[in-house]
Amino acid sequence: MPKRHSEPDTEIAAVVTAALLVIGDEILSGRTKDTNIATLAGHMTGIGIRLLEVRVVPDDEAAIAGALNALRPGYDYVFTTGGIGPTHDDITTDAVAKAFGVAVDLDPRAVAMLRERYAEADLTPARLRMARIPAGADLVENPVSKAPGFIIGNVIVMAGVPRIMAAMLEVVTPRLRTGRKLISHTIHSREMEGAIAGVFADTQADFPDVLMGSYPYFRDDAKGVYLVLRATSAERLALAADRLKERLRGAGLHFDDDAAE
Amino acid sequence: MPKRHSEPDTEIAAVVTAALLVIGDEILSGRTKDTNIATLAGHMTGIGIRLLEVRVVPDDEAAIAGALNALRPGYDYVFTTGGIGPTHDDITTDAVAKAFGVAVDLDPRAVAMLRERYAEADLTPARLRMARIPAGADLVENPVSKAPGFIIGNVIVMAGVPRIMAAMLEVVTPRLRTGRKLISHTIHSREMEGAIAGVFADTQADFPDVLMGSYPYFRDDAKGVYLVLRATSAERLALAADRLKERLRGAGLHFDDDAAE
Repeated sequence: MPKRHSEPDTEIAAVVTAALLVIGDEILSGRTKDTNIATLAGHMTGIGIRLLEVRVVPDDEAAIAGALNALRPGYDYVFTTGGIGPTHDDITTDAVAKAFGVAVDLDPRAVAMLRERYAEADLTPARLRMARIPAGADLVENPVSKAPGFIIGNVIVMAGVPRIMAAMLEVVTPRLRTGRKLISHTIHSREMEGAIAGVFADTQADFPDVLMGSYPYFRDDAKGVYLVLRATSAERLALAADRLKERLRGAGLHFDDDAAE
Repeated sequence: MPKRHSEPDTEIAAVVTAALLVIGDEILSGRTKDTNIATLAGHMTGIGIRLLEVRVVPDDEAAIAGALNALRPGYDYVFTTGGIGPTHDDITTDAVAKAFGVAVDLDPRAVAMLRERYAEADLTPARLRMARIPAGADLVENPVSKAPGFIIGNVIVMAGVPRIMAAMLEVVTPRLRTGRKLISHTIHSREMEGAIAGVFADTQADFPDVLMGSYPYFRDDAKGVYLVLRATSAERLALAADRLKERLRGAGLHFDDDAAE
């Protein structure tokens, strides 16, 4: 089980963490290529929250509730995407309520939001399903199609349609506690990974506070590697990048500094 | 925890299941958009294995070993992607060995594979890292860049670079036990999800053996929904699709049958 990474909000360590639970048979069958993981991951990095785990589960109440209860004690926030629409396969709301042991009922605030979009006659039982909210939850407005997401405890429940999910993420962001941002510096090299591994590991050993990852690519027209350094301190990041470049130069290895990818 | 979905290999139920563990800080930071989930998901559906869970974890030995030990009792196969390269952040092999409680050592078969690509002088310690294999594992050949993946117990360890991962998946496929394929039938409708939800739920209630999912889309130029029916029996699938079309027609709702997406 993940350990709680949250630490006191001091200048040296203000780490806020998150996990993402992606809900939907369509991702697991390969019918739909998920894009929400990348959207949320990039957004979290940008606002200073560390995404530390993602799970994808099917439209199955026990699987959803089980994953949620496994994740929520371990991270400051757990986001979910998918399964809050009007059809019978949309079971996220009930699964979340089950995980929290609370009731689900028609929420007058959510009904009011749906009324902004639908005439009274069009508020079918199926559409009203989207106004069923677990007891005690706060709503997350949906600027695209009105049916809201919600926040209960540290869990933020969002739609699966990428455009709606992205809009809800913007809406919810001001309500999130954030930590120090990880900033990054990328060095590109046309060398093979195996050739730079030694100097890279030596540099990592010198800077345990800087995260260093090596990402090779193999295309028809080119091969090479991106060396990515990440830290919360701009000063330490620059020092580590300088040390790495010094070592690459010393070993006669090609590199382009601060490469755009 | 996931229940074991594997059932006796009879005509009525031959279900083989899998989970995927994606390993890498770069996915969780948003730097890299994962494509391996979609590749593996589509491939599993095509060969008759049901992918029922995906997890993404960082380059952290405890997180990798913990997730692996949580997943492997629950599914017939657990695939992993990422973290088997030559650099210090490639720790998947050690984490897998730790999860299984076995030693890791230089594997002569893996060294022989690397020799096909590298001259003796180029077999640096970093590159030889890629020939370290947990005791008892079988190798998975790598047609792209030689450094192999491996199979230990029900765990299949593959590279993270999409092109290499796809090649390893092809190599390993003949060694997998597979079940009955889920086949699908897609009906497109320009109606809103809320409008078709009633007839869709009624049809699902009539065919509990057919999986039915509703996938709306919202683009600038068009809105609509794909209704996807999935079953192992072509006969039941056709019956369910016919029933759904009958109901949509009866309710005066638009649809295109068997729509290409």
